[in-house]
Formats: sequence, structure tokens, C-alpha cells
Amino acid sequence: MHMQVFEQWESEIRAYCRAAPTVFHSASNARQTDEQGRSYIDFYAGAGVLNFGHNDPKMKDALIDYIQNDGVAHSLDMYTTAKRAFITKFVETILKPRDMDYRLQFVGPTGTNAVEAALKLARRVTGRQQVVSFHHAFHGMTLGALAATTNAHFRNAAGVPLDNVVHQAFGCETQCPNCTLGCGMPSLERLRDIYSDPSSGFAPPAAFLVETIQAEGGVRVASEEWLKGIQDLAHELGALFILDDIQMGSGRTGSYFSFDEMDLDPDIITLAKGIGGFGTPMAMNLNKPEHDKHWLPGEHTGTFRGQDLSFIAGTVALGYFDDPAFMDETRRKGEVIRKRLETIAEKYPRFAVRGRGMMQALDFIDGDLSKRIARECFDRGLLAAVCGSKGQVIKLIPPLTIPDDDLEEGLNLFEQAVDAQVEG
Amino acid sequence: MHMQVFEQWESEIRAYCRAAPTVFHSASNARQTDEQGRSYIDFYAGAGVLNFGHNDPKMKDALIDYIQNDGVAHSLDMYTTAKRAFITKFVETILKPRDMDYRLQFVGPTGTNAVEAALKLARRVTGRQQVVSFHHAFHGMTLGALAATTNAHFRNAAGVPLDNVVHQAFGCETQCPNCTLGCGMPSLERLRDIYSDPSSGFAPPAAFLVETIQAEGGVRVASEEWLKGIQDLAHELGALFILDDIQMGSGRTGSYFSFDEMDLDPDIITLAKGIGGFGTPMAMNLNKPEHDKHWLPGEHTGTFRGQDLSFIAGTVALGYFDDPAFMDETRRKGEVIRKRLETIAEKYPRFAVRGRGMMQALDFIDGDLSKRIARECFDRGLLAAVCGSKGQVIKLIPPLTIPDDDLEEGLNLFEQAVDAQVEG
Amino acid sequence: MHMQVFEQWESEIRAYCRAAPTVFHSASNARQTDEQGRSYIDFYAGAGVLNFGHNDPKMKDALIDYIQNDGVAHSLDMYTTAKRAFITKFVETILKPRDMDYRLQFVGPTGTNAVEAALKLARRVTGRQQVVSFHHAFHGMTLGALAATTNAHFRNAAGVPLDNVVHQAFGCETQCPNCTLGCGMPSLERLRDIYSDPSSGFAPPAAFLVETIQAEGGVRVASEEWLKGIQDLAHELGALFILDDIQMGSGRTGSYFSFDEMDLDPDIITLAKGIGGFGTPMAMNLNKPEHDKHWLPGEHTGTFRGQDLSFIAGTVALGYFDDPAFMDETRRKGEVIRKRLETIAEKYPRFAVRGRGMMQALDFIDGDLSKRIARECFDRGLLAAVCGSKGQVIKLIPPLTIPDDDLEEGLNLFEQAVDAQVEG
Amino acid sequence: MHMQVFEQWESEIRAYCRAAPTVFHSASNARQTDEQGRSYIDFYAGAGVLNFGHNDPKMKDALIDYIQNDGVAHSLDMYTTAKRAFITKFVETILKPRDMDYRLQFVGPTGTNAVEAALKLARRVTGRQQVVSFHHAFHGMTLGALAATTNAHFRNAAGVPLDNVVHQAFGCETQCPNCTLGCGMPSLERLRDIYSDPSSGFAPPAAFLVETIQAEGGVRVASEEWLKGIQDLAHELGALFILDDIQMGSGRTGSYFSFDEMDLDPDIITLAKGIGGFGTPMAMNLNKPEHDKHWLPGEHTGTFRGQDLSFIAGTVALGYFDDPAFMDETRRKGEVIRKRLETIAEKYPRFAVRGRGMMQALDFIDGDLSKRIARECFDRGLLAAVCGSKGQVIKLIPPLTIPDDDLEEGLNLFEQAVDAQVEG
Repeated sequence: MHMQVFEQWESEIRAYCRAAPTVFHSASNARQTDEQGRSYIDFYAGAGVLNFGHNDPKMKDALIDYIQNDGVAHSLDMYTTAKRAFITKFVETILKPRDMDYRLQFVGPTGTNAVEAALKLARRVTGRQQVVSFHHAFHGMTLGALAATTNAHFRNAAGVPLDNVVHQAFGCETQCPNCTLGCGMPSLERLRDIYSDPSSGFAPPAAFLVETIQAEGGVRVASEEWLKGIQDLAHELGALFILDDIQMGSGRTGSYFSFDEMDLDPDIITLAKGIGGFGTPMAMNLNKPEHDKHWLPGEHTGTFRGQDLSFIAGTVALGYFDDPAFMDETRRKGEVIRKRLETIAEKYPRFAVRGRGMMQALDFIDGDLSKRIARECFDRGLLAAVCGSKGQVIKLIPPLTIPDDDLEEGLNLFEQAVDAQVEG
Repeated sequence: MHMQVFEQWESEIRAYCRAAPTVFHSASNARQTDEQGRSYIDFYAGAGVLNFGHNDPKMKDALIDYIQNDGVAHSLDMYTTAKRAFITKFVETILKPRDMDYRLQFVGPTGTNAVEAALKLARRVTGRQQVVSFHHAFHGMTLGALAATTNAHFRNAAGVPLDNVVHQAFGCETQCPNCTLGCGMPSLERLRDIYSDPSSGFAPPAAFLVETIQAEGGVRVASEEWLKGIQDLAHELGALFILDDIQMGSGRTGSYFSFDEMDLDPDIITLAKGIGGFGTPMAMNLNKPEHDKHWLPGEHTGTFRGQDLSFIAGTVALGYFDDPAFMDETRRKGEVIRKRLETIAEKYPRFAVRGRGMMQALDFIDGDLSKRIARECFDRGLLAAVCGSKGQVIKLIPPLTIPDDDLEEGLNLFEQAVDAQVEG
Repeated sequence: MHMQVFEQWESEIRAYCRAAPTVFHSASNARQTDEQGRSYIDFYAGAGVLNFGHNDPKMKDALIDYIQNDGVAHSLDMYTTAKRAFITKFVETILKPRDMDYRLQFVGPTGTNAVEAALKLARRVTGRQQVVSFHHAFHGMTLGALAATTNAHFRNAAGVPLDNVVHQAFGCETQCPNCTLGCGMPSLERLRDIYSDPSSGFAPPAAFLVETIQAEGGVRVASEEWLKGIQDLAHELGALFILDDIQMGSGRTGSYFSFDEMDLDPDIITLAKGIGGFGTPMAMNLNKPEHDKHWLPGEHTGTFRGQDLSFIAGTVALGYFDDPAFMDETRRKGEVIRKRLETIAEKYPRFAVRGRGMMQALDFIDGDLSKRIARECFDRGLLAAVCGSKGQVIKLIPPLTIPDDDLEEGLNLFEQAVDAQVEG
Repeated sequence: MHMQVFEQWESEIRAYCRAAPTVFHSASNARQTDEQGRSYIDFYAGAGVLNFGHNDPKMKDALIDYIQNDGVAHSLDMYTTAKRAFITKFVETILKPRDMDYRLQFVGPTGTNAVEAALKLARRVTGRQQVVSFHHAFHGMTLGALAATTNAHFRNAAGVPLDNVVHQAFGCETQCPNCTLGCGMPSLERLRDIYSDPSSGFAPPAAFLVETIQAEGGVRVASEEWLKGIQDLAHELGALFILDDIQMGSGRTGSYFSFDEMDLDPDIITLAKGIGGFGTPMAMNLNKPEHDKHWLPGEHTGTFRGQDLSFIAGTVALGYFDDPAFMDETRRKGEVIRKRLETIAEKYPRFAVRGRGMMQALDFIDGDLSKRIARECFDRGLLAAVCGSKGQVIKLIPPLTIPDDDLEEGLNLFEQAVDAQVEG
């Protein structure tokens, strides 16, 4: 009965609520509580948004303080003190230590909007139209970003041809068990061949748009060698190398950017999800200055691109990275998850473990099985969601701030759910 | 110096901050204060978002309470008590009294995303691709919505052809002074002719996408007769009638929907901007159930479509409409603005007044002049922004909650600015 | 039984043969004879190809001589003496007397190919993509030309969106009786308005593609004023003015080009149909040298672009224009047809007469009636075909060389057929 | 001086005449003679049109007789005795002995038009838009066919995006020396993988469009295994299998269809070039009846689709296939060419020989070298042309009717030209 309002009035398109059929009321760090008072451990973190947990106390204080003092909540792209604090913190904490020189572009506060802006800029800079993205890629739902997204379920909803993007094979570091799409370095060679043969049918593209780990695509991890090769190829062809770090950035993999330890220098980096810290929306692109100067004022606008509550909480979130221990802990907890998944995979050798940092996943090969396991998790008090082309993968992405006890309990619940469904 | 951080690190694309070069620090109802302590009267309301003013006290209380009590801040499309309260309030306050039967679709929290979703649904329902939008329309910046947006400044940034939308003449109730694009009922006749002649080159469209007042397009007001005609034509052709009420809805024109007093029954209504109440992002479509059922679960997704802070503040905002006096007051204040603009237009008869409710505008014909006036306003302590194809129009859209004193003072500042620039 | 081979083995797409169900065996000037020996007067001339009649004796001699002497029949774009003779004759007879400076581009021997080449060149020269064509236009069946063609029957067969062309109202000199698509000079004004308003949604086009008389579109005759206005607008906007004279050129209207007496100077002129003289295929564009130089060798190729039989017969055909009496006669015969149509229209005032030179038509308003009349013509021994968006128009386009007796007899048959069907 | 007319008046786009700079006057079987009386052996046969040589005596007689007797030269798609004779002959000689059931669709008389019609039909039948063609494919120059053609030189001339076709790797039976585009069976596997993974970004296509030998693409020969695999994959996916036999059909490879000895059953076969016999244009598709019935009358029209001179000569040409010796001879001559090329390749082992029947080629790897050799051939009295993505291949395609002496002499000239340029 408590869900009846939704069933009666909300659109048929609703999805997550079908897999987690309860009404949530409150949340704290890695736990959500429903209105019956039942507590769930959160291994999904709002689709990777809540890297710092639900209702981080420092963010709560900062937000309450800001609101109480009549801080500007919504400012378009006008200047505010909250925005300046965020920019300053981002520059000092993230860019300067890495010697990175980028211009910060705040866009409509969704990842898809960040991708749309990046594609516009790449097309403007190069004067070309076609963009290369990769099988299993996820880049968003608006028409420009959707053309780069590969899942047929999403693409079928477009209703128009999704032009100006071509999809090629991704450079997985290991072959996924039931994937046959030519992972690894051969895919790079094929791209190079396509663009060196004038009769391939392909003209040099405006950009290569790439994730370091395809999260929605099933936690498929690209090798550094392949990523570097794509970047080199892009530059050989006069194309931009756009790195979509929307889900993988903001510390998820054990470093602020997912590519921090790689020899990469993207032309544009798209960020969203975790940068707002608290779960309020925000999206921001980092553009190399030589590209950024091609924008004319206001060419890509968006009412909600000045989200000061997100600036406030996001500034607190960036503070986490002042202490190197935060990323050390992230990697340590990532190992804990990884080990447990490997233990499970030893029991059921047909399953495959993939991931990096606190983005870890178990590939169950079989989409029906994985969905039953995810539901079993929910029933046992654990939130975890499927991904991959057939939903055959469950990714475990708790808040980076999850206490060890909750992590352990969550892993126990997960293993029990797997056992129950596999052995059952 | 205080703006140097922005100039050094933020993208060249920034726009509003160039017209209002200061750093804002706090805001309350219809006033914003910069970090030097200078107070500005806000006649722009965050591009139409802040219908209920900055930092509405009841919303502040509700938000602080929600945050303090660890309310869920971010919930994808899972069920939360905050969302249920919002839905319930919307159904009771808005839908039921109007006998409207719609399904609520929460989308990525931007207007452009709402439009993208509406176009997908219209194309799905009809199996057609082309959509009709209108000269001077503004519907958003992502590729699907941008195709429906007409301003060349925005379209030029796409870098790819903007296909599957065709633009026709809008049905202004009065001819804009320097507009030659065939306003009024003849545009409807032309559409009917195009779609009844099998050699026009046009196939029946998936949808007609229309604003009742083209705000960004220069506050061009459609006649009810024309809107009704477009709706009828859509239905004759088996197309959907989509009403974009993103800027005009939520009370701006003196009724909740901008078309409340008209004999209209849209297939889809897009809402954003004002519905979140506080300035935090939110977007929601109202789909007729017979169309909504064509959605498959999760086909149009978006990380940030579960914005509980917006649900909390938005629920408070809906409370304003429980008292009919609120809309009476809005219309009264709208008349106050209108009268003042007419007074100015009497002094300078080449200028034209247009608008409805608290969306009122003065068309200065000359884009250079209007931009100088807007800057003069800023210098005098009033925030107001230009719109229209050449920026030749200034629209005055204060919060609906603006106190009479502030409204009066703002209008004085505006008139002084006009006088200074026109007579100067 | 004699048609059974076709019915059994030929594609369902066959069309003309359904309206003229017999098997033709021979033809001479304006008469075709079927295998039963029945003679038909030809008022259709192979869809406007056979301006010089069937089996013109001089062309027959020239072709037989050429074949007997082993002339090259097929030469790609290599040089042949036959081609040189054609070029020389065309330059001396057509270009030089008119002081016209164009480069001759021989393309794959179909009108649609000529249009494709013209659009490529216009897009190359301008760097723009969109082309303007007009309601009721016919420019061909291949995808590039089909996008400029308007009839839904043809467009529906494309199976893909027909992008990069936009259709606007044509500049008829008189309003067609059941046409509501805004003929005449207002359509020019609307175009000018669209391209002067930066928020119309339209960017300046690569080209305006226009027919002086829309033959397939129902013999809709553009006014010189409108054509000149379109040419001026094109040049104001930096666009090319392409004149499609495929059906109207080669003498049909009483002058070699259909626009000879107008103050026009097209950037590209497309020719096909009549230029080969004998009914063998040929197509040729005339490109202004300043545009033509943008072509790279072989960029638009086509196996059959060197049709020497067409060069041989086409050279003979050009000889007709050495004697001014030929065009005088054409205009005189055109008047004969016109007068008869006007006589018929006096009897049935709801019908409208339109045309110029020997392109004359009667608009029966009602497509069912016109098709019955065309069939009645066939039954009585006259070949005539319908055109127009609903097939409501019958155009009478006999060979220009038709003897007066045949012309008279044909007109008698036509009038009898009309009477029989209208009064019947 | 004799070429000055062309240089002054013909378009800059002319191409073959630049490689063979003389003016041809007559031609007989495998020889062309220029106006200075110099004789050239023709190893190019009008780009594969003149399979039966220039001015075949039986065709000459038939054409002269037809013209002298006032045969209908041009008949749209009306029935003629000439067309019936052609259809009957085609059915009896080609279809019935092979037990093939197809409907004959006569289209505008160019190969590109045949491809356009085939793509329309495939899209109609399947309701899908995207078509798969292959790297190095050549299918024509009009926009629909050009999208399936891969050479950048041609594609760059389009001026608009070439959408709705995707290019994949071709199934060469042997790896071309400097080709890196993934020839052979792996390309089939990749296609199967792409279409079985719902997150590849590719939806099932309307058709696979394939050549058995990519002539323009550099005489790249597909294996039967791969062709069969593509056909099977097409049918698994509900797509059509379209075989473009425009250059390879009509006997070129030693059997009427290039796939006669393969276990293939195409849904649509496109034919042009050789079917008219004499060099006059003609194009014809063979559609399976179950697909053909989806056409509505006249949906894909074209003025010149009733070319009776081509029907007359084409009927004579089909007579060649009544005697099995004709194809035996073709294979024997093909072997003669092949052996000579292999002899040359023994001298210069870096060159590669490829081909089948009388479509044989030498791949010189180096495009500059091959162009110098082709010019050396011309200077020595042999017409031969380059193909391949960089023009690095010379294909030898004399008329199938070439006398042994001419063949021998031509091969001698070719070998001398190679020696002169390679050793020189």
C-alpha cells in the first residue's frame, strides 16, 4: 500500500524501484533505511554518486550552515563565493599537484550533458563530425551522448537514427568470459588500419571517447597500453582524446582520476556523479586551454549549471583527498572486496572477477542468474545492482567511506546470496 | 582580483557573469548580495527557476530538517518518502482539481532532458521521426532538444546536422515589431496546407512541440486560438501535442500551468525550472497514460533523476498553490509590471510591451541598446537579462513572491536605466 | 497473352505499362505503333525526352553511319571525336550566342545523377549542407536527389530520413486551383525572412534548387519575378542558384533553355532528357567556371557518362536550333495546344490551363477523373500522362516536331476523351 | 590542339582522359583507334562494360536493323517487343537453367541506380535503415550508393554525412600484401559477434551488400566460405543478402554470374555494365518475388529505364551464353592472363597476382609505380587502368571476345611496360 502512490501515478519507465521494492526514508554513510525501519547496506552508492557515503557529517554541517546563512543556491553561471571556493579547492587539490592545466566548464548538472558539451567542443575544434566510441560504452541518454552509448535497450528508445558516432572494440585488459567483441590490443590495431586505409569507408574522427573502466558495460577494464594507444592514435589523426571519468573519477578506483597512474593526457575529461559529494547534481568538464578557447560565450548553456549546494558539498568532498590515507584506504578496501569475489569465483570457476579499486564486479555470465542474485541481496538487506549488456554482472561499489564492519557484513550477505541462488 | 580565479580557471564559455561582473554571496527572496555587500534586486530569478524567491524560509526549514535527519538526498528512481510526498502533493494540488490524468516521469534534472524524453516518447508512440517546433523556440542544449531550438548561436555549436526537426512560424497573438516570420493564424493554415498536400515534401510528424510564451525567444506570446489549432492539427495528423511549460509553468503566468485557462489538453507536458522550488534541479514530464504505457522500464535513465532535496522543497513550493490568493497576487503584480512597461513604451513608442502574468518584457528592437540597458540596470543594482533572437528584448521575471517595495524599486531602477540609455 | 511475359517476370514496380497496356513495336515522330498494328499519337514523348520525335531520320542516318563505321559507342570520360563534335556544336549553337560561359560536366546518363552532381558541387563550393528545394519539386530518385523531390509516394520508398534538404513554397505565377501552399511572391518574402532572422532555426543554405516549370509537380509555372528573386536571395546568402532544366530545357518551352527570356544567370544548370535527341540516355551539367574548378578529377564518376550514340544524335538535335524557325514553330504549336485547352476549360470552368511553349496542361482538380481521362485517351489512341501531387493534371507534351495533322488529331482525341469522361 | 576543345570547355572533373590523352575515333572488338590512326589494345573494356568487345558484328546488325525499322528507342517502363525479347531470352538462358526465380526490375540505366533501388527495397522489406557494406567496396556515386562506397576520394565529394551504412572487413580469400584490414573469415566472426551482443552499438541491419570480387577496390577476391557465411548471417538476422554483380556478372569471371559455382542464393542481385552488351546503358535488378511484392507501382522511377537499344544488343549478348564454349574460352583466356601475371610476379616477388576468370590484376603495392606503368602501357599502345585504394593495382579486363593474338600482344606490352618502369 505504501508503494501504491508510485504505482498509480509514476511513469511506467521506473526501473530501480522494481528491483528494490521498498520506500526509503533515511540514509547514513553506507546504509539506507526504509520506512519500516529495515536497514540495507548500500553497495551501489547511488550509481556511483555517493563515493563519500550518505549524509557525510561535514557536508551536512556545511550545507546546513550555507542554507541557514542564505547562501545563493542557484546561480546560473554567475560568480558566487561558493563556486570560487570549489574552483580554488579543485585547482589546489587536484590540478596543481598533477601539474595539469585545464579550464573548468560547468555544464547542466548531469553526466550526459557533460558528454554532449565535450562532443560539441571536439567537433568545433576539429571541424569533423564523426566520433569513435566503443562497444559496451555508456555515455548518457540525451541524443548526442546516446549515439555514443551502445546498449540496444537505450538506443531503441531514440526513435531516430543515432548518427555521427561509430563503435569499435574496447581494449579490455582481460577477455571477458562470454565476450567475443575483440577485446585488447588487436582492437587498436584495427582502428589504426581503418584510419590508414583511404578505402576503409572511415574518415578521421573528431574524437575518441573512452572510459577507463566500462562500468555500465559490465566493469570491463581497459589496459593502460590500449588507452595510451588510443590517445596516440587520436593525436596522429588530429582528433581529440576525451576521457569520460564520470563514474570512475572522484576517487573510485583508488586515485582521484581513474587514469592517475597512467601515462595519459586527455584533451577533455568529463566529470559528474561523485564531484558534488552529497548526491546533489553537478557536472564539469576539464578542457585543455587550447581547445577551450574555441568556445564562444554561452554556446552551451543550461539553467542548472550553477549548483551552489553541490559546490559547497563538493568542496568538502575534495578535502578527503588532502590526506593520502584516503586513497590508500580505498585501495585497501578494494582489495578486501576483490579477495572475497575471488574466493567466490574459486567456488564457482565459471564466474569472473573484474575491477579496480572500489569498483569490483563478479560476472555471472548468465543474466537471469545475476538478477536473481541481486534480488536475493535485496531480500537479505544488501543493495547491489546488475550491469553489462545482458545484466549478467553485479558490480560492488560501496561508498569509499564504508566502515570495515559494514563492508564485511555486506560481503557476507553477497556471498550468501550467491550461494543461495547458485546452489539453490 | 576577486574575480580572477574565475577568469583564470573557468571556461571561456561563461556568459551571465560577463553581464553581471561581481561575486554573489547571499540571497533572500528577490534580493542578491555580492561579497562587497552590495544588494541587487533580482528581476531574473535564476532564469525563471526561482519563482518562490531565494531561500524561502519554509523551504529552508524543511531542507535543514531533512538533512539534519539524514533524509535520503539522492535516490535514482528508487522510492523514497520525500518523493512520495511530492507526488502526493502534486496530484492533490495540481492534477486532481483540474481533472487531469497524467503519469509523472522524473528525468535527469534539466529541462533539456525533459524535452529529450518527451521527443523519444512521441517518436515511440507514433513510429515517426520528424518533429515540428517553431521559429524562436528554445527547448535545450543536448542534441535532441537542440534540434528543436532555433537560435543560430546555439545551433552552430552542434557540429553535426540537427536533423529530424523542422521549424515553422509561431502563432504570436500580436506581431512583434521587427519580426517578419509570419506570426499568427496564417502559420497554422500553412501547416495544415503542408500536411494535406502529399507533394509538400513533409510527412506527418511525430509531434508538435510548443511553448505558450517563447521566453528565450523574446517573450513572444501565442494566442489561445493558435495553440488550440496546433493541438487539433496534431491530433488530425496522428501526432502528439507536446507543451513545453518549463519556463512558463509553476505559476509564472498567474496560473499553475501557463495554459490553465485555455482549452488545451496536451499529450505531454514538460516541467523543470520552478518545480524544485529552491533552485535545486528537477525535471518532470506529465505523460498521458495511453502514451506512457509505451515506455519500457529504464529506457530513458539518468543518474540524478531522484533529487530528494528538490522533492522536499518542491513539496513546500506546491503549498503556495493551496491558497488562490497566490495566483491572484501574481496576476496583480504582473499588472504592476505591465503598467510600468506601458508607461515607458508611451515615452518611447517604438518599444513594444509583451507578456503575461509575471513574465513581462520590453522589446527595444535594437540589441545593442537593450544590452546597454541591461548593463545599466546591473550598475544601478538591478538584475535583468536580455532575450530574443538578437538580444533585443529585456524580460522582467522577478520571483512571484517579491515584496511590493522591491518590485516598485526594481521598476524604478529599470525605468531609470532605460531613460539613461535611451535619452543619453 | 502477349503481355504475360511481363506480368510473370517483371517487377511489381512497373507503372506506365499499367496505364498503357499494350506492347509497342515501332515509332516514328509523334506516333507509336503496337504489335497489333494499332497507331497511337504520342503526347507524352517519353516523359519529355523525345522533343525531336521518335526515330528522327537525320539522327537515324547519323547513328547507323556511326555504328557501321565502328564508331566508339562507350568511352567513359575519355576523349572521342563524337564527343568533341557534340561539345563544339553545343558551344557554338547554345553557349556562344548567349554569351554564356560554363564548363560542361558529363555525368552518369540520368537526370537524377545530374542533380546529385550539382548538389555535391554546391556543397563543396559553399562548405554548407542544407539545400532548399520547393513544394511539388521533382529532381530524381537516388537518395541525394530524392531528398529534394517532394512527392510522398517517392519519398516513402527511401526507407531512411531524407535529410539536408528543406522544402519551401514555390513561386507560381498563378495560383493553382486546389493548391494552398502559398504560391507566388510571398514565398520569396518568407524565405528572405527566414534567412534574416538568426532564430528561425535555418542556417544559410548551400543552394536553391529550382525548376522554372514544375512538370511532374503538375505543370506549375514560376514567375520570372520569383525566379529572379530566388537567384538574388541565393547570392545574398552566399548560396548557389541551381536551375534544373532537365525536362524544361532543350527547346520544350519555345526557347533552348526554359529561362532564355528571363534575366537569370544560374550557377549550375542541369540537363538530361532531351539533350541526347534520340531517346538514348545522356545528362550534362553546366557549371560556372568559378565553381567547376572546385572539382577534383574523377570525384563524381559513373561508368556510362561517355555515351557516344547520344553525342552523335545529340549533335544532330542541336542542329534544329540553327534555324530560328524551329522555336517559332514550337511556340506556334504551343499556342495551338493552349487554345484547345482553353476551349475545353471554357466548357468546364473548374478546370485550369497552365503551361508554356509545348508544355501545356489541364488541371482536372480531381485525380480520379484525370486518370480516367488518361485511360480514355489511350483507348482512343492517344498517349498522355498524369502528373501533379494527386495525378490530377494531364500534361500534353508532344514532340516539338509533331506534324500539324497529328497535333490536331491528338487534340481532338483529347477533347473527346475529356468530354466522354466529364459528361459521361 | 585536337584536345583543346575538351580542355577549354569540359569540366575539371574529367579523369580517364588525363591518363589516356588522345581522341578516339573508332573501335572494334579489343582495339580502339585514335584520330591519328594509332591502334590500342583494350585491356579495360569500358570499365568492364564491353565484355563482348567493341562493335560486335551481330549486335551492330541487330541495332542497325532495329533503327532502320523504326524500333522504339526509348519506352520508359512501357512494354515493347524488344524488351519482351530481352526478358524472354534472359529467363530462358540465365534463370531457368539455374532454377532461379526472380523478378526483373529495370531501373535508371546506371549501376548506382541499381544499388539505390536494391537498398530501398531492403529497407522497405525489413523496416530497418542501416546497411552493412565492406572496406574497399565500390557501389556507385549517388548519395545512397555512395554511402556504401568506401573510397575517401569519392566520399569527400558528398558534402553531407553518409549515414545509414556501416563498413566492415571484407572476406578476402588471400591477404592482400599491404592490406591490414582484417581480411578473411575473422571478419565474419566479428560481424556475428557484433550482432549477437546487444551492447555492441549495432542493431540488426536491413541488408549486407557485397561484391564477390571488389574490382574497383583492387580486385580483392572473396572466398566462397565467407560469402556463404555472410549470406547465412544475413538470414539469421532477418536481413537481405544483396549481391552486387554489376562489374563481375555477365560472364566476366568465367560463368554468367560471378557466384554461379557457389552455394549462394541472393535476395537481390544488381546488374548493369555488361548486360546491355554494346556499351549502351542498362541496369537491372533481380529481386526474389517475396521481396519484390513489397514495391508499389512506380515508387522507384527513372526516365531512361526503358532502353530498347540496350535490350536489342543485350539479347544478342545473352546469345553468347547459349554455347558453353564461350565460358570455357573465357576461363582459358583468364588462365593465359593469370599465367603471364604470375610470370611477372616471379620476376618481382613483391607484386601480388589476384583475380578470377578474365578479371585479373597485379598489385604493385606502390600507387606511384602502378600509375607510371599504366601510362607506359598507354604510350606503348595498351589501355589498362589502375584500381585499389591508392591506385596501386592494375586490373586487366579485356573483352571476353578478345582474339588470342591481341591478348598475347597486349600481355607482351604490359610485361614490357612493367619491366621498363620497374627496372628503369
